[in-house]
Amino acid sequence: MLFTDADYHYMQRALLLAKKGRFTTSPNPNVGCVIVKDAAIIGEGFHQKAGTPHAEVHALAMAGELAKDATCYVTLEPCAHFGRTGPCALALVKAGVKRVVVAMIDPNPKVAGGGIRILQEADIQVDVGLLTKEAELLNPGFITRMKHQRPRITVKMASSLDGKTALKNGVSKWITGADARADVQYYRAQQSAILTGNQTVLADDPSLNVRYQELLNSASFDRELLTESKLRQPIRIILDSHNKLTLNEKLFDLPGKVWIISTVERDTTGFSTKKALIEQIIVPANNNNQIDLQALLTTLNAREINDLWVEAGATLAGEFFKEDLVDEFILYQAPKLLGDQGRNLVNLPEFSTMNDIVNLTLHSVVKVGDDIRLINHRE
Amino acid sequence: MLFTDADYHYMQRALLLAKKGRFTTSPNPNVGCVIVKDAAIIGEGFHQKAGTPHAEVHALAMAGELAKDATCYVTLEPCAHFGRTGPCALALVKAGVKRVVVAMIDPNPKVAGGGIRILQEADIQVDVGLLTKEAELLNPGFITRMKHQRPRITVKMASSLDGKTALKNGVSKWITGADARADVQYYRAQQSAILTGNQTVLADDPSLNVRYQELLNSASFDRELLTESKLRQPIRIILDSHNKLTLNEKLFDLPGKVWIISTVERDTTGFSTKKALIEQIIVPANNNNQIDLQALLTTLNAREINDLWVEAGATLAGEFFKEDLVDEFILYQAPKLLGDQGRNLVNLPEFSTMNDIVNLTLHSVVKVGDDIRLINHRE
Repeated sequence: MLFTDADYHYMQRALLLAKKGRFTTSPNPNVGCVIVKDAAIIGEGFHQKAGTPHAEVHALAMAGELAKDATCYVTLEPCAHFGRTGPCALALVKAGVKRVVVAMIDPNPKVAGGGIRILQEADIQVDVGLLTKEAELLNPGFITRMKHQRPRITVKMASSLDGKTALKNGVSKWITGADARADVQYYRAQQSAILTGNQTVLADDPSLNVRYQELLNSASFDRELLTESKLRQPIRIILDSHNKLTLNEKLFDLPGKVWIISTVERDTTGFSTKKALIEQIIVPANNNNQIDLQALLTTLNAREINDLWVEAGATLAGEFFKEDLVDEFILYQAPKLLGDQGRNLVNLPEFSTMNDIVNLTLHSVVKVGDDIRLINHRE
Repeated sequence: MLFTDADYHYMQRALLLAKKGRFTTSPNPNVGCVIVKDAAIIGEGFHQKAGTPHAEVHALAMAGELAKDATCYVTLEPCAHFGRTGPCALALVKAGVKRVVVAMIDPNPKVAGGGIRILQEADIQVDVGLLTKEAELLNPGFITRMKHQRPRITVKMASSLDGKTALKNGVSKWITGADARADVQYYRAQQSAILTGNQTVLADDPSLNVRYQELLNSASFDRELLTESKLRQPIRIILDSHNKLTLNEKLFDLPGKVWIISTVERDTTGFSTKKALIEQIIVPANNNNQIDLQALLTTLNAREINDLWVEAGATLAGEFFKEDLVDEFILYQAPKLLGDQGRNLVNLPEFSTMNDIVNLTLHSVVKVGDDIRLINHRE
C-alpha cells in the first residue's frame, strides 16, 4: 500500500489527538481517530479515560450520518471485543465507512487482527501500517505489557556530574534544580504507577504523587490538556518485604492508591484510617529473602500496570538493572561535583571485565534549567 | 561607535582567518586581519606560528601599495613592541591606512592601548569593540594568562553515567568510544601543554601526545587546516614530586618536550638518551609535601603556557578543583553503569553541607558517537 499525502496528513492529526489522552487513559492505550469525507474532517476524537467511549465512538458521533462512505483514520486497530463500549469495528461497519486506515494492529497477540477481520468481512477497505512507529510511541507501556506480560519500566534518578546522589551524611536537597523537579512531575503524571522501596520512604518521607502546581512549572506541560480536576494520581507502590513501614509516613495521608508489596502478611489495622486507599499485596521472596521482582511484575501485569516509574535508591535501582528489567533510564544530572565521599548512584556487583557492566544507548539529552536530562534505553 | 553591516562582515572574515591558527600559534595568540578598499578585500592573513609574521604583516604584504587609505580589520590590537617582526601598528602607519577597526584591545595590562595610541597619533581613525566577545573566544588561554598571570586550566575526564572511571580492578579500556577519543585528540592539538600526575603515568603508561591519524577521525577536525608536518606537540608536563618516574615510561620515547615537575632534584642521567626533550623543573612543595599548584602555575606562566589541559586521575584532578583552579571541565560520558564498586571520578573532602560542593555551569552538551561531551565552566 502506498499512502497519499492526504493519508499522512489525517493520520498525523489522529496521532496528535491520541496524545491528548496521555495523562488520563491508563490502563487503556492512547488512541486518536479522524473521519474524512470529500477532503474535510467530519468527525474526530480521542480516548480520554478507561470506562468512557473509545476514539472511534467520539469521531462517529461527531460525523453522524455523514460517516457513510467516509474514510476513517485510527492510530490503533479498532477493538473487536464487547467491552463497556461495544466493539468499535462493528460500529464502523454500521456507520457504513468505506475505508479504514490503521497505524498499527493491536499488540495483544490474542486479539491482534480481530478488528480488521470484522471490517474486511464487511467489504471495507483496510490499509494498515501508516506511521506505525509514531503510533507505537503513543503507548510504549501498553505495547510492552501486551507483548511481554510485564509493565514497561523506567528508572529515574538524579545525580551530580560525578554520579553522586547525596553527601555522605545523606543530605541531597537539592542536587538538581526546580526546573528538573518540575520535569519529573510531568513524567510522573503519565505513569500508571510509581514504585520505590521502604528505605527511601523511611529516609526521605516522600509524597510520590503528582502536584498540579509543580506540573504547571514544567516547560513541557500544556495546562489546556489537563485541568486540575482531571489529574489522575499514579498508584504508589512501595516494596516493604518485611513490613517495616509504620503507616505514619506522609504518603499514606495523601489521596490516591498505595500498594504495599510484602513477602509476609502485615497487620492491616489502621489502613482504613488513612487518606490513601491502601492495599497489601503478597509476592514471593527471592533467594535473598527480598521481593522477587519477576513475580512482582507478573502481579503488576495482571493489575494492568503499563508504565512503571521507579524512583528508588542505589540498592533497589541496582536490582532492576542486575535483572535486566530497565527499559528506560532517565537521569537528571546537575553540573556539580560531590566527590568520592558522596553516595553512589547505583549498587552493582563488583565487575572484573568491561563485558559485565550495564550498557545502555543514549536516546536523547536536553538541558532542563541548569541541569540536563539524559534518556537512555536498554542497549 | 555604531558599526556598519560591512564592518561586521569583514570582522567576521578576520575572525574566521584567526581560527586557522589554532593548532600552531601557541604561545602567541590567534589573530586575523582583513584589509578592505572600495568594498573589496585587498589583503588578508592570520598569524600562523610564533616567530613568523603577524596577521597584519601578511595582509599588508598582500595589499601592497593599495593599502593606502584602506580600512584594516584586526581581531586583536596591533602590537606596539619591537619583537621579531617589528611593531604592526607602525607598519599600518607606514602603509598609510585610513582606518583601523579592532575587535579587542591587548589583554596584557602593561601594553594595552599602546598599539592604538601609535595609530591615533598618526591621525588614523581607530574604532575598537566590534565582535569583542567572539574575538575573546579565539584566545581564552592567552587572555587568562595576560590578566591573571597563570594558564587557563581545562580538566578533561571520561566516565560512565554513574561517574566511574574504571572498574575496581583498574580496568578502564574502554569506557568511552573511538569518536570521543578522537575528539580528545582534537582538543589536545590546541593546547600549550598536557599535564598529568606520575600515578597516571605509572599505572596507564600513556603517550599524552597528539596522533595525527586519530585526529583525522575527529568529526570536528579539518585536515586542510593542519597537515601532518605542521603538527605541533603540546608540552607534556608530569607532576612527579618525589621522582618516582623511571624514564622507561613510553612517553619519554616519543618526540616532543617533557617537563618533569618535582620538589627535589633528580638524577638526570639518561635524559639525553630518550627521544623526548626532557627537562626537570623544581617547584616548592605545599604543606602536604606535594607540588604547590599555585607555584607551579606561576612557573608555567613564566614559560608562556596559555592553555593547560589536565588529564589526571581522581586525586590530582580533585586538587585542582579544591584550589578552585579549574576554568573548564570537559567530561566525556558513556551511557554505561559501572556500579558503586567502580573507581570514583574525583576525590574531594567530605562535605557536610551542599554549600561546600563544587558548583559549575553547563556550557554545552553534544553527542560524540555513542557518548556525550559536557563542557562545564567555573560557576
